[in-house]
Amino acid sequence: MPKQVKIIPLGGLGEIGKNMTVIEYGGDMIVVDCGLSFPDEEMLGIDLVIPDMTYVERNLDKLRGIFITHGHEDHIGALPYALKRFKAPVFATRLTLALIQHKLDEHGISNVDMRCISAGDTVKQGCFSIEFIKINHSIADAVALAIHTPAGVIIHTGDFKLDYTPLDSEPLDLSRFAWYGAQGVLALMSDSTNVERPGYTQSEREIGTTFESCFERATGRVIVASFASNIYRIQQIASIAIAHNRVVCFQGKSMVNIAQMALDMGYLNLARECVVDVDRLKDFSDDRICVITTGSQGEPMSGLFRMANATHKLNVGDGDMVIISASAIPGNEKGVARVINQLFRRGVEVVYDAMADVHVSGHARQEELRLMLALTKPKYFIPVHGEHRHLYKHAELAKEMGMVPDHIFIAEIGDVIELGADKGRIAAQIPGGSVLVDGLGVGDIGNSVLRDRRILSSDGLVTAVIAIDKRTGALCTEPEVISRGFVYVRDSEELIVEAKDIIKERALEFTKTNKSEWGQVKNSIRSALKDALYRRTRREPMIMPIVIEIE
Amino acid sequence: MPKQVKIIPLGGLGEIGKNMTVIEYGGDMIVVDCGLSFPDEEMLGIDLVIPDMTYVERNLDKLRGIFITHGHEDHIGALPYALKRFKAPVFATRLTLALIQHKLDEHGISNVDMRCISAGDTVKQGCFSIEFIKINHSIADAVALAIHTPAGVIIHTGDFKLDYTPLDSEPLDLSRFAWYGAQGVLALMSDSTNVERPGYTQSEREIGTTFESCFERATGRVIVASFASNIYRIQQIASIAIAHNRVVCFQGKSMVNIAQMALDMGYLNLARECVVDVDRLKDFSDDRICVITTGSQGEPMSGLFRMANATHKLNVGDGDMVIISASAIPGNEKGVARVINQLFRRGVEVVYDAMADVHVSGHARQEELRLMLALTKPKYFIPVHGEHRHLYKHAELAKEMGMVPDHIFIAEIGDVIELGADKGRIAAQIPGGSVLVDGLGVGDIGNSVLRDRRILSSDGLVTAVIAIDKRTGALCTEPEVISRGFVYVRDSEELIVEAKDIIKERALEFTKTNKSEWGQVKNSIRSALKDALYRRTRREPMIMPIVIEIE
Repeated sequence: MPKQVKIIPLGGLGEIGKNMTVIEYGGDMIVVDCGLSFPDEEMLGIDLVIPDMTYVERNLDKLRGIFITHGHEDHIGALPYALKRFKAPVFATRLTLALIQHKLDEHGISNVDMRCISAGDTVKQGCFSIEFIKINHSIADAVALAIHTPAGVIIHTGDFKLDYTPLDSEPLDLSRFAWYGAQGVLALMSDSTNVERPGYTQSEREIGTTFESCFERATGRVIVASFASNIYRIQQIASIAIAHNRVVCFQGKSMVNIAQMALDMGYLNLARECVVDVDRLKDFSDDRICVITTGSQGEPMSGLFRMANATHKLNVGDGDMVIISASAIPGNEKGVARVINQLFRRGVEVVYDAMADVHVSGHARQEELRLMLALTKPKYFIPVHGEHRHLYKHAELAKEMGMVPDHIFIAEIGDVIELGADKGRIAAQIPGGSVLVDGLGVGDIGNSVLRDRRILSSDGLVTAVIAIDKRTGALCTEPEVISRGFVYVRDSEELIVEAKDIIKERALEFTKTNKSEWGQVKNSIRSALKDALYRRTRREPMIMPIVIEIE
Repeated sequence: MPKQVKIIPLGGLGEIGKNMTVIEYGGDMIVVDCGLSFPDEEMLGIDLVIPDMTYVERNLDKLRGIFITHGHEDHIGALPYALKRFKAPVFATRLTLALIQHKLDEHGISNVDMRCISAGDTVKQGCFSIEFIKINHSIADAVALAIHTPAGVIIHTGDFKLDYTPLDSEPLDLSRFAWYGAQGVLALMSDSTNVERPGYTQSEREIGTTFESCFERATGRVIVASFASNIYRIQQIASIAIAHNRVVCFQGKSMVNIAQMALDMGYLNLARECVVDVDRLKDFSDDRICVITTGSQGEPMSGLFRMANATHKLNVGDGDMVIISASAIPGNEKGVARVINQLFRRGVEVVYDAMADVHVSGHARQEELRLMLALTKPKYFIPVHGEHRHLYKHAELAKEMGMVPDHIFIAEIGDVIELGADKGRIAAQIPGGSVLVDGLGVGDIGNSVLRDRRILSSDGLVTAVIAIDKRTGALCTEPEVISRGFVYVRDSEELIVEAKDIIKERALEFTKTNKSEWGQVKNSIRSALKDALYRRTRREPMIMPIVIEIE
């Protein structure tokens, strides 16, 4: 019986974020991407979320390498956490490797086996050989993978769009995908992000027109906020700015870092004398200044956020123009709107996506997704990089094109998809999911801690401390009642006095009956306080009774 | 010198929410609308937000009435809070009054002087006479106001769109606005919600086509989620459902209440035998069932949310179709997406605004806003009902049409806009802003409580309790260290032991030096614990030292 290849998503399905997939055949295994996602609003206090990598750790003897499609956080962000736990060679293109290196340096991780590849290269690891194929995306040096396995070829698109006129002048390698389609593709894993949108995604080049007209019109400083990693975008904006006789200044930590890296590596081509430091801007009149900054998502402490709130040394105001060259990522809408409103209040003219074509997506829409399916003609199809609704819609698209429904897998994280020449199926489930990172803690925050944070965030807490004589059970002193985040204390003296009376009453009952089970005293105090406070305030703070026994 | 009329916004400017405006002339004052808004994500634990009404309360002798344009929460929601503080007649149309009455009943408020008016009516209060003008909006019985003052006529559009083919067959009263324009309008206050969008808002009727095709195609149950107050929408959906031989069942508290009210009052016209209770649905096959439910915003505990999470008695699944007839209100995007994903996971076909025309807005777009300006030809223009960027853009629109910039006021809450025949200006500022409602507390939660909730929500808290002999300053017992929302306690014994050692050490220092200022002991413990815990965890919980003195 011929063996079958296993595809095991560890992230990126049922979510847009933390992409990671295991491809396994016999005694060999590779990992595609290793990303993080940002916490949703229920994950209070969590810094970031990474995939549960237990399965990889349990099969380290099989691991032949980690293959990274491009340098976005949702594809590289969990690498430091992975590489702290285990060793494996990391394969990526030059820019992607530089971004990874920067990340590893921040985590103080060294001695990683980094292998630089280019589109068109093929590497052999274990039973696999992996070819890197040029695609277009909103970051330079992004690739798709053609993974040759003994069971057949798996094409993983990574994140892609088809740009016939990209700024690095190389469109997606159509002929290579077509070649694989002609040879026979076992499975296609394709980006589902924009599957709800009909037609084609615009070329990156098309927003140039909008920028041209903005710079023509502008009489004061022009400040553009964009994603630091979108080097094409930055190149285009900076070139137009320089053509309009402006100097370019980068602001915001990641923008400064990545722009410097891209300049050094030759991904960004700007006359060095046109790039100036923020302190040198005073030497130029406003109509000669262009600032390219972080903050397109309204992130607190980003360059644009600080400008909007007048805590940045660039004191933006009347006559200045701010262009927000991005659309809000779901969840950031209100933050972005707040920054826009603040800027308008300061007299700035703001140009943003509701008003002008200042942003194009890096992800393929329906026609491009159909094209990818038509080119590669896969036997099996696994839509990836999407919430459940995107995967569902992408599957519908494939069905409309004639794919057999049984050959399409709308999978979940942890599903083991077994594919062979004869059949494909979800054969098993392995442990998979989200690991929460909070400060130095990786995976130590679970539901009980999050539940406590939720209660505390909503109505605060009330601590009731009593000191009790261990022998007699009598109160040694007045109870202490301290609240935080519950009521404004100065206006609530009466409520606190009432609470103390309730505590004394309950403690006394126990003294009288001579019980010494303090767990019961605590419960009794908790429930009496809860009722009384709810009745008086209609709030439900966390109640924390503490009993100190004095010898 | 002729007296001037004052327009004082107490809400609805710089925000979409809690609309409320004071119009004052000499010894007379009226209030237009009295709405609430929902807390933004920084207002942890807050239930709702109402306008600061201090100015009204200080001028109660002048107050001649509260005029309500329509029955949405952001126009009526703060009425119970206002009417608990002061008395005033409330003027509104029949449906609006019914919605207000329902709200007052919930708050146990009675004896309110409610005056029912209709579009076309004029009432005289003090020096003002107010005409109610028919407009179109996403709720029935909505009106604009023409407020005659001795200084001139102020037109307040309320929330409006222009629908030539509305479902109640009366379009906005164009001729009345034109008549006022011909007579002379001192000031126009006009809805800015959709000013970023070019063209016209579609007619409510146009989405009928989508619903027709959905019902034609559906073979199982059809569940439609929409706003309970959009009675036109509900009428349209229910009529189409009944025409397709289905019965209609209302689900979700507000949907059931408002549908019943609308049926009783004749705003909703459905054959009574076609409206069935949820318990009777078992008598009908799936293809004869249409459920109209709350939950279009993904609200937890709403009808649709419970269906998506399988905690509703309607066990939706394969073969059922859910139509979400709404777009996500900013801030709700992720919640709505989560419900859609859940439903797809359960095998339901979901139709939503990214995929089909299942929703139209109730607010005018650019061409309608231009038309309103052209019809009324106001001397002064005050864009309202918008965030700052909307007001700014609406002002731009007016300027493009030739309005003098000096006659346009992009105002803030609390501005006193004085308008007369000769001049208009922002003459002063009165106290205004947001009052937070949390449980029974109205306005008692301020920044310090919110700051505490924020800290607690992010990293939890650590309580350190020591009992100290009042005479000797010696510790009476081991310190207690209790945390919540900080770390998973079972895995953190070592950390707690370390914390106790630090506390003992600090307490001992004070015993030795024989200081008895416990404030200092607390500060010393707090800062030592903060440092140690941050070093170990990179988290910053709230630290709450409590010192109990034992006599």
